[in-house]
Amino acid sequence: MARSVTIKDVAALAGVSLGTVSNYLNGTRTVSPDTRARIERAIEVTRFVPNRAVRALRGNRTHTVGLLVPDAGNPFFTEIARGVEDAARGRGDVLVYCDTAGDAERQSLYIRRLAEMRVGGLVISATAAMPPDLGDLEAVGTPIVVVGGEGMSLNTSRVTLDQRLGGQLAMRHLLDLGHQEVLFAGGPGGELVMQARYQGALDALDERGADRSTLHRLDAAGRSVRERSELADEMMAMRPRPTAVLCGNDLIAIAIVNALIRSGRSVPGDLAIVGYDDITDAQLAVVPLTTVRQPAYRIGASAAELLFERADDQASPHREIAFAPELVVRDSTGA
Amino acid sequence: MARSVTIKDVAALAGVSLGTVSNYLNGTRTVSPDTRARIERAIEVTRFVPNRAVRALRGNRTHTVGLLVPDAGNPFFTEIARGVEDAARGRGDVLVYCDTAGDAERQSLYIRRLAEMRVGGLVISATAAMPPDLGDLEAVGTPIVVVGGEGMSLNTSRVTLDQRLGGQLAMRHLLDLGHQEVLFAGGPGGELVMQARYQGALDALDERGADRSTLHRLDAAGRSVRERSELADEMMAMRPRPTAVLCGNDLIAIAIVNALIRSGRSVPGDLAIVGYDDITDAQLAVVPLTTVRQPAYRIGASAAELLFERADDQASPHREIAFAPELVVRDSTGA
Repeated sequence: MARSVTIKDVAALAGVSLGTVSNYLNGTRTVSPDTRARIERAIEVTRFVPNRAVRALRGNRTHTVGLLVPDAGNPFFTEIARGVEDAARGRGDVLVYCDTAGDAERQSLYIRRLAEMRVGGLVISATAAMPPDLGDLEAVGTPIVVVGGEGMSLNTSRVTLDQRLGGQLAMRHLLDLGHQEVLFAGGPGGELVMQARYQGALDALDERGADRSTLHRLDAAGRSVRERSELADEMMAMRPRPTAVLCGNDLIAIAIVNALIRSGRSVPGDLAIVGYDDITDAQLAVVPLTTVRQPAYRIGASAAELLFERADDQASPHREIAFAPELVVRDSTGA
Repeated sequence: MARSVTIKDVAALAGVSLGTVSNYLNGTRTVSPDTRARIERAIEVTRFVPNRAVRALRGNRTHTVGLLVPDAGNPFFTEIARGVEDAARGRGDVLVYCDTAGDAERQSLYIRRLAEMRVGGLVISATAAMPPDLGDLEAVGTPIVVVGGEGMSLNTSRVTLDQRLGGQLAMRHLLDLGHQEVLFAGGPGGELVMQARYQGALDALDERGADRSTLHRLDAAGRSVRERSELADEMMAMRPRPTAVLCGNDLIAIAIVNALIRSGRSVPGDLAIVGYDDITDAQLAVVPLTTVRQPAYRIGASAAELLFERADDQASPHREIAFAPELVVRDSTGA
């Protein structure tokens, strides 16, 4: 892994002290025109500090950790937040979080704004394309940990979840139960995440020698409760009608369960349903959900661990903590 | 309403320029010992800038709005956040939010940390005791809007929701339906909020000349889904058994509905249920909820409006925007 450019490289190349570079960057003391020119040349050559926004965040960190999530209304992310927050509180830090709505542009803006606020570190739950300058942010003192984002090329510490295995476990379970027409109902945001799970489901079909065309896909799911709820009608109207559905998250699964029960249908009789995440609501739904568990709280705690490792020693190597998903079987598939 | 002390008052009293006071506060330039002494005396006399934390936040604001909520996992607050955020985005600001878990101490800490981060303003959804120095924060340039907190004495702009009327509307509805043993199941955090609604329910009994002792109260409700769900069993075991329950929020109501239906009971047959808030999930629950609507998105948007009014002109007077709750009747009370 390439070492990030640091302030030391700039100082060495400019032939000035660290303190002088720091004064230049923070504007805490004026430096002579000659020194300024040498520092600016060194910055250009080393590609250190690419823009004013990034430069602005040198200096004292605040006792805060920033967390970016694609959907603050999903208990899966609330639980990750709790894991990060409890760890942060142990150090006297507080957690502030932002909802990117899974939008790459908004994500970039929020990263920049949090950096300007001099957060002590950033945990980014990756579902959209990541900005390319994360390494630059780290170089000027904002440690970053990415949660998820398998398949992305990132030069940060990260917590990975094996989405593809998750899709595979869920599909295997449905094949074991004899389902032959299955619908994959992808969730909002996170194209990469949903694509990985879909691939996993195809893997399961392949390993059984089953026909890939029996797995249908519907990615219309928005993130509002109403949009999720309307999926149920769509599914009932499909021909061939699926007998089971793999949902992008538990909230989608619960909305479909509720809509079917309200309209007098039965789960899993009319439709077997598999969720994803295993939020607490999954177990306490009107029909308890079969789902793929991702241990949200521990994921958050692990992200905090990696973050503080880097915050305390910027020279520590990037690390990865990997979690494996786990199938939890309950009533909604009638196993 | 008393005008807040500003930096101008300090400058006037000390007989120095605004810039000098600013230099003193920000440490951007040293001031002479004599000037320093005069400024410090003026600060003491005017009670301006009471502590270092507050002093630290003078200076440039970041393009952020901070929001404190008592339960980030409750869609009611997610929706308030959306209202604030959309308004903030219109100005190029982003929203960062913090979960106080309804804890007064954590709330104080978060307010301080966000102020240190130089947020452009703070919206505080009040459910616990408020720190007494909100006025001081405003005086040094962090405008504050409080949502709720009726009955609290606060010197800020605010958005009020008439909780007492909400409790009254809900109880009237149950009395109209002939219920004679009703349980009030208070939610987590916000003692003041729950107390106001409980008072409203008593008002409804009084206006009908009914016996106040027929309204029972249970405040054990924690905020986890599991705790909410366990309430159902507790209710079924009470003697006299209530025939209806007023819930502290829709999440509690939905958990009770689900638990009853899972155990083969009927809603409203075995228990009529009234929620509070009218989150989208209320309408799409397995038994659609009768509930008291609080227009969360508009509440958030109004809070932002008041906040930006103060941010743009610190001399503008504090204002209040009041929302009235509204009863929404659906299946869970079988009206």
